[in-house]
Formats: sequence, C-alpha cells, structure tokens
Amino acid sequence: MKQIVLIGTGLIGGSMMLDLREAYPSAVFHGIDADKQHAAKAKELGLIDLVSGMEVLSAADLVVIAIPVDATVQLLPKVLDQIGEQSLVMDVGSTKEAICKTVRGHAHRRHFMAAHPIAGTEFSGPQAAHKGLFGQKTMIVCEVEQTAFALQERAKEIFEHLGMRVRYMTPAAHDRHIAYVSHLSHISSFMLGKTVIQEEENERDIFDLAGSGFESTVRLAKSSPAMWTPIFAQNREHVLDSLDGYIANLSRFRESVKNNDFNAIFEDMEQTNRIRTILKGMENGK
Amino acid sequence: MKQIVLIGTGLIGGSMMLDLREAYPSAVFHGIDADKQHAAKAKELGLIDLVSGMEVLSAADLVVIAIPVDATVQLLPKVLDQIGEQSLVMDVGSTKEAICKTVRGHAHRRHFMAAHPIAGTEFSGPQAAHKGLFGQKTMIVCEVEQTAFALQERAKEIFEHLGMRVRYMTPAAHDRHIAYVSHLSHISSFMLGKTVIQEEENERDIFDLAGSGFESTVRLAKSSPAMWTPIFAQNREHVLDSLDGYIANLSRFRESVKNNDFNAIFEDMEQTNRIRTILKGMENGK
Repeated sequence: MKQIVLIGTGLIGGSMMLDLREAYPSAVFHGIDADKQHAAKAKELGLIDLVSGMEVLSAADLVVIAIPVDATVQLLPKVLDQIGEQSLVMDVGSTKEAICKTVRGHAHRRHFMAAHPIAGTEFSGPQAAHKGLFGQKTMIVCEVEQTAFALQERAKEIFEHLGMRVRYMTPAAHDRHIAYVSHLSHISSFMLGKTVIQEEENERDIFDLAGSGFESTVRLAKSSPAMWTPIFAQNREHVLDSLDGYIANLSRFRESVKNNDFNAIFEDMEQTNRIRTILKGMENGK
Repeated sequence: MKQIVLIGTGLIGGSMMLDLREAYPSAVFHGIDADKQHAAKAKELGLIDLVSGMEVLSAADLVVIAIPVDATVQLLPKVLDQIGEQSLVMDVGSTKEAICKTVRGHAHRRHFMAAHPIAGTEFSGPQAAHKGLFGQKTMIVCEVEQTAFALQERAKEIFEHLGMRVRYMTPAAHDRHIAYVSHLSHISSFMLGKTVIQEEENERDIFDLAGSGFESTVRLAKSSPAMWTPIFAQNREHVLDSLDGYIANLSRFRESVKNNDFNAIFEDMEQTNRIRTILKGMENGK
C-alpha cells in the first residue's frame, strides 16, 4: 500500500494509523478532518504525514473513515463516488445497519468493508491515540460478502498487522448485540454519574466517599457526547429494547428491596455472578 | 500493641492484617472466623499467626470486625461484652447507622470505633487479601466523639500505618452518601450484567462483542452476594431513594430516545461529563 487516507483524526483512526505506519513504512499517510486543529495535531503527533483534502481519495489504497456515525452515513457514499479502482474503504463505526444501508446498491459498494473494532477508551481526539490499541481485540465485519474478494484479503492483512481477530456478523445481529454489551453500558454509566451528581450538592463528599468501584462503573460517563448521540440515534430501536430490559430489572430489584425480599436479592446477584466466568472468558479468549 | 484479633479473615480484614504485621512486628495476630477453611487459609497465607476463638478478646489491644454487616450487628455487642480495659474494637462495614445503633448505650461503647475504609475489590476471601490495599484511601469514621480519646489516638496511629486519610461523618450522612457512590454502583452493575446475560442466549456473542467498556461497567457484578445483601437490607431507605433517582433518570433518557429528542440526550451526556473533573479530583486528592 502506498497511499493511506484517514478521515477523522481521532482516537480510533489515529491509533490505527500508528500501527499501520509500522506495517507500511513506505506509505504516505493522509489525514482529512473537518476540525483543522485536530488534523494539525494529528500531523504534529505523527499519526499522519499530511493534512489533505478529498482530492487524494482517487489514489488511495486504503481509506479509513473514523468519524461519528451520522457523519459516516452522509460522507460514505461521497467517498465511494471519488475513490479509485484499487481503493479499499473501511469504516469503524459503532453501528452497522444504517451505514450498510446508505451504500446498498452503490456502484462501488464492493470497495467498502463495514467494520467495527471492539476497542477504544473513554477519551477522544488525536492526543488520545496510542499504539497497540487493537492488539488481541475483535474486529466485527458485516456483510463481508458484499466486499470484493481481493479487498477482503487486503483487509485481512491489515487486521493481522493490527493484531486483531475477525468475526463476521450481519448488520442486524451486530446492532442488536452491541446495544446490550456496549451502548447500554454507556447509558447506565452516564445515568449513574448524573444521579450521583444530582444527589451530591457538595462535590467534596463524592471525592471522599467514592472508591474504585464507583470510578470503574462511571468511567464511560466521560465519553464524548458528539460521538455517542448519533450512535444512540442510529441504534434507537435496539437501545430502547435494552433500556426496557435494564429498567425492568432495576424496578424488580427495587420492588424486592421495598418488600424486604432479600432472598430474591441474594439469588439475583448470585445468578449474575456468572459474569465472572464470562469476563474470564473475555480475558482468555482475546 | 501486643495482641491483635481479626474477626472475619477475608479481603478487607486480611489486607489490613498484612499491613499491620509490618507496623507491629512483635504483636501476635489472631484470626477468628465462622468459616474454618477461611481461617486455616488465612493462617497458611500469613495473614494471621493463630486461628483463635472468642476467649482471646479480653487480652486484645485491637479487635477488627470484618464480617458482613448483618453479622456485625449481631456480634459487636457480644464482642464489647468480652473485651478488656485496653481494647480498641473497630468494624469496617459498609453501613454505619445500624451498627452504631446496636451499641448505643453499651457499657463499653467508648471502646468502639465505627469505621469504613473506602477500599476493596470485587474479589473476596483470604486469598484476595493483599498489601497496600488501603494506601492513599479514605477511612470514614462515624460518631468519633463516642470513642475514648486514648483509643482515638491509637486508631489514628493505625490509620497512619495503613496510609489512610481520615474523614469524620455522622452515620446518617455516611449511609446516605454511600448509597449513591457505592451501593447504587453495585446495583447498576449487577442489573447490567443480568440484562446482558438475559439477552444473550449464546454466550459466545458476549465474549466477542464486549469490550473494555462493558468489562469496566459490569466489574462490580462479580461481588459477593453474601456481603452485599445485608448491606442493601441495612441501608434500605437510602438504597431505595438512590434507585428511584437512577430509574427516573434512565426513564427520562429512554423517553428522549423514544421521542427522537437527541438534543436532550446530547445535553444530558455533556452535563454528566463533569464526572471527568470529579474523578480527576479523586485521583489527585487521594
């Protein structure tokens, strides 16, 4: 690969470039960003070589789109309009149905791979990018059969350089599952943060009484609203379902506490302790 | 101090003994536990010198009660019945109102200090104990004026050896605040784990799609039901209040998603991002 273009020079795209620069040392890395300060910072940090514009797309071997999912839905068809015969275009968004739908039937659909790396942190922007973010993580690929075989092979090579394992899913299955294991986690964390902030008029009390448990549970409430609002919008139906399930479980827990039914509370928690094995599986399997 | 007695040889008590053994190398460390295997394990791991019974209480310079809070309410008055003139008794439970109430008016009330170290992990048992658990953490002390001054001084020395800073609160304020920053975190995490497990019939999907965000948010759902059920029971009123606030916030968030009011969603998250500064304060302040 000689020309690599990153659209959106934030945490995810920037981290990917850092790893790919080692894998493709002779390639030129272009960065395109609506936020000029982000683009300049990405260049300063060495995530990209050049701040570029859309005119570089036609010569690109790889285009990575790493912007909020609402912007991806808008921009992706235009990117596919402008790419060359050799180009592989990949998005990294946290929703897949709307993004796949926006290019269904596009003349260059076979140049596109719908991808979602299960990796990230609560931080954002180019300064949050770092090497090795994707190592041992999972890359979800959707509608792989819609991507040209030669470009599938190129993507596979890229994922190997990133140290990722690949799993294939339909966009519908992806969006449903991810609503539960990712989107709901973010909402539960944001609402926990909100509830505690509301209660504590004197912040000093939070500092003193909050331990590592609170810190861990509320960590995702630091995440970027600009990134997460469009995710919730695009995955609205599944997010609503997951929230309904969560609120129902919390309400039942509340009823048990209210009714002094602490046997039910104990059993509820004991059953959920199964998450220990599940998380252990995550650690071992990834 | 020559004789130190730990009642409950688990994570919190065991970790405390490990640090105190360095501070008081010539003292004898006794362990009392209803679970004989825990006591034996604690001895094997060097958390205590001897597996003992209640007969050692009268000679104790320090008694640390580190058992579930319902058991503490039962046992604490009996411990105070049996201690000597020199003894300081300290509990480390996550609730304070019921525990303080159970010894109100006890002839030896002034030998007791109601304490709650803001430290711990999601693991439990003697094998989870480790050195340095309390370093840079906060020890909440309640009703300090009810503890004899000389024993306050001894406790202060102990907390210094553990590397803790002390904060004084009323039992009522403690229980109310801790419901929000600790008990609610645990419930939100347990119910998140439950909701995801319910949804995912095929666990493999959880492994593949769950990232570090889910892992962080659901971590507390590994916690011990035997420890947490009595905490929720004793802090029932405040736990209900905190759950009401949390469920109301989640329901409002759900309504905004349902109504496609994503401006409200954005603003909600942006306001809650303030937790970044709060958590930073925690890191710097502790």
